[in-house]
Amino acid sequence: MDQVELVEVGPRDGLQNIPVFVPTETKVALIHALVAAGFRRMELGSFVGPKAVPQMRDMEAVAEAVGVPPGVRAMVLVPNARGFQRAIAAGYREIELVISVSDAHNRANVGRATRDSVEDLRRLLAEQDPKGRLFIRIGLATSFHCPFAGLTEEADVLALVRQLAAIRPGMEYAVADTTGMALPRHVQSLCGRLLEEFGGEGTFIFHGHDTAGFGIANVLAALEAGIRTFDTAVGGLGGCPFAPGASGNIATEDAVYLFQRMGIETGIDMGRLMLAGDIATSLPGAVVASHARAMPRERTVERRLAMAR
Amino acid sequence: MDQVELVEVGPRDGLQNIPVFVPTETKVALIHALVAAGFRRMELGSFVGPKAVPQMRDMEAVAEAVGVPPGVRAMVLVPNARGFQRAIAAGYREIELVISVSDAHNRANVGRATRDSVEDLRRLLAEQDPKGRLFIRIGLATSFHCPFAGLTEEADVLALVRQLAAIRPGMEYAVADTTGMALPRHVQSLCGRLLEEFGGEGTFIFHGHDTAGFGIANVLAALEAGIRTFDTAVGGLGGCPFAPGASGNIATEDAVYLFQRMGIETGIDMGRLMLAGDIATSLPGAVVASHARAMPRERTVERRLAMAR
Repeated sequence: MDQVELVEVGPRDGLQNIPVFVPTETKVALIHALVAAGFRRMELGSFVGPKAVPQMRDMEAVAEAVGVPPGVRAMVLVPNARGFQRAIAAGYREIELVISVSDAHNRANVGRATRDSVEDLRRLLAEQDPKGRLFIRIGLATSFHCPFAGLTEEADVLALVRQLAAIRPGMEYAVADTTGMALPRHVQSLCGRLLEEFGGEGTFIFHGHDTAGFGIANVLAALEAGIRTFDTAVGGLGGCPFAPGASGNIATEDAVYLFQRMGIETGIDMGRLMLAGDIATSLPGAVVASHARAMPRERTVERRLAMAR
Repeated sequence: MDQVELVEVGPRDGLQNIPVFVPTETKVALIHALVAAGFRRMELGSFVGPKAVPQMRDMEAVAEAVGVPPGVRAMVLVPNARGFQRAIAAGYREIELVISVSDAHNRANVGRATRDSVEDLRRLLAEQDPKGRLFIRIGLATSFHCPFAGLTEEADVLALVRQLAAIRPGMEYAVADTTGMALPRHVQSLCGRLLEEFGGEGTFIFHGHDTAGFGIANVLAALEAGIRTFDTAVGGLGGCPFAPGASGNIATEDAVYLFQRMGIETGIDMGRLMLAGDIATSLPGAVVASHARAMPRERTVERRLAMAR
């Protein structure tokens, strides 16, 4: 194993929690800076209702400006048929849909039980993509822990993936530590079981948050289990500004630095990534949680380290 | 394994990087709050020269106020014979001395080669504690990585411990990730080798920093290797205020939360620890890096989690 794939989710999962609207041109500049840093997969935004997520109300304008950047697998999140149609009209062919493993969380999100969302998904895919030409990714929210119901049973995740894989084989699943409170051994166990049972029928990626400081430990745990694709957000964006200090997604800078040190290729240029990070961390209202704040010192150390070799 | 020991180092390693003098009564209040939280081992401060570390210039007054709290193993750091004598005069019987594995770091710290510091230590112990009645801990700085020389060879750490153990068997060694840039697999490897070679002749603890976000991953790596004692600082104090965002020691709150979740006893009361954290995080000039900033939310989750069980 000498390479991993990072999916940059800052432009969607990162931005959506920022209560101050980010101007379209800033979103576009951020996406272009991330493309320049070397990402080959990105979550560009979501086609959701403007009342549900006001931050994404300019999604058509962002899509018009960035399109599908050359050489990049561009993914967008949609919650329903309307979002699906908007995404396809905007030219996207990689679509993400979210289902919560926890009934309580699914009800809080979309007002219905998880099993009803599975049926919705079955209908949606049959209607919107009858010939199976799109790349579909399912975000498995609360795969480890639910803010309402506590710990999630691994068996519940496995059972849900069984149902989903029966609807459409070959989908990608983002195994999401939504609250950022999964223990590393839990991440390793669940990811290992998913890969063992479904490794040939789907792709699994780890989507973590750093709420409790377990972020990098969980990336290593997922890696140990065999996961090779990780969602991260530039600057560790994604924290909720109404929970002061709450961390968001695992910071891309932290993951890139970890893999660099381990000799694992990510394809990302750290210098250019930090330019994208400058945009991310200067957004009014944003909660930043990357350890790249310490980077000037680290980079000096790295230079010395390189000289010492 | 169902329990670990945390050594709270906030009052020394945490405070010493704060450029604004912390009043003696605040230091005393912090120490009392930490004792109330349940710590049975603490590093209370250092008897160093006031020019070298102005923050510790009131060490005699702090010692006068807190003494050796009942039931607590109180440790102080000393750099030389003068510090040793001050520590003993103040009533302390657990003394920490620091040697850098890296020659370059040792020269930067004390102006001489590591091997010369080993000889200094031999003389110092012979002079100050000829009957071997004190508990001596050696801080092995730059055990993994040196800001000047890059990665530290594991063989160099092992060779240094061999020399030190020959001077005096039974000492404790704090295997220190001084820069906070050690990779978890490096921590696991070195700690494993130390325990294997010297497990019967010394005690080994892991002293980490969270510079690159590897803190919790490194605690888990050391635990995996067999380490059962960890240095942590309340609030993650210890960051250098001149490197904005640079993280300090691994936050005690993060470690306590990790072990709680894993079902491993630390003896620390999280609620009382957070009261101590309130003192730590309100210090002018302090850099705080604990994920306990996200704790109100987490605690709510934990309550729900407890209710759901």
